Amino acid sequence: MRLSEGVEWTVHCCTLLAGLPPDAALSAKKLAEFFDVPPDYLAKHMQQMSKAGIVNTKKGPNGGYSLAKPARDITLLDMVEAIDGRVCSFKCTEIRQRGPSGVSPCSYKTPCGIARAMRKADQVWRDELRKTTLADLQIIGLRETPPEQMNKAITWLKGLFT
Amino acid sequence: MRLSEGVEWTVHCCTLLAGLPPDAALSAKKLAEFFDVPPDYLAKHMQQMSKAGIVNTKKGPNGGYSLAKPARDITLLDMVEAIDGRVCSFKCTEIRQRGPSGVSPCSYKTPCGIARAMRKADQVWRDELRKTTLADLQIIGLRETPPEQMNKAITWLKGLFT
Repeated sequence: MRLSEGVEWTVHCCTLLAGLPPDAALSAKKLAEFFDVPPDYLAKHMQQMSKAGIVNTKKGPNGGYSLAKPARDITLLDMVEAIDGRVCSFKCTEIRQRGPSGVSPCSYKTPCGIARAMRKADQVWRDELRKTTLADLQIIGLRETPPEQMNKAITWLKGLFT
Repeated sequence: MRLSEGVEWTVHCCTLLAGLPPDAALSAKKLAEFFDVPPDYLAKHMQQMSKAGIVNTKKGPNGGYSLAKPARDITLLDMVEAIDGRVCSFKCTEIRQRGPSGVSPCSYKTPCGIARAMRKADQVWRDELRKTTLADLQIIGLRETPPEQMNKAITWLKGLFT
């Protein structure tokens, strides 16, 4: 089972947006250029981030995406769920109710034990993703990005905003 | 992101195999009949369980699948990984290295912080699945299966083994 590539793309985009000057925005085209990913697919994924209330969209020549709230208030789970949804990775189709031993659905008083264990694991996965905020990722990025890359990124951004 | 339906099918099959008399086995055809699932797909998934060392395969007229080890020694994670593999649900394609700010791959001293957080969450998911054994699922099944279903299941099994 695999998460959409859109998760990687949009989380990286949000870490970049978190470092923009106040009131600045970046278009999907510019974000796609920065990370060298397909602009059309990225635009679709950024619209999902917008619908989830993680980024704002500003129209016009200097328009584009900016964070809709402080980076410390956006969790990794928020971003993952914006792209991948909130549906449990395990789909219970109630096969226990089928075949020669199946009985009336109302005879089953509890959800299937297998489904319960799978949902618990899905929950701990989400709980773990909730522990990391975009601000945490931004700090890690600032600390670990190679200095040469940091300089090139700042030059690229300055070219857009000055 | 969704696990294969084969996970639900095979885990249920293993709970049934865990309740068989010693030396008894069930064919993929009979397992498929019991759970009313497509025999060909189930056979493919049961072969994955066999390759993972969870079930044994016995040839011949009374052949079929049986557990390869005690139910207490088979975890839910073993069964999930037999079908779904051990690959992390997040695929890092190193987009940080791309675009106008990318630098030489050897400049990156640590895995990307986003990938690290995602891998940690994948790990806690697997750790949680490891906590439940097939014996636990069997006990839950024995306790919670409607009595009417239990009687029908026993009748069905007796018809095969007597």
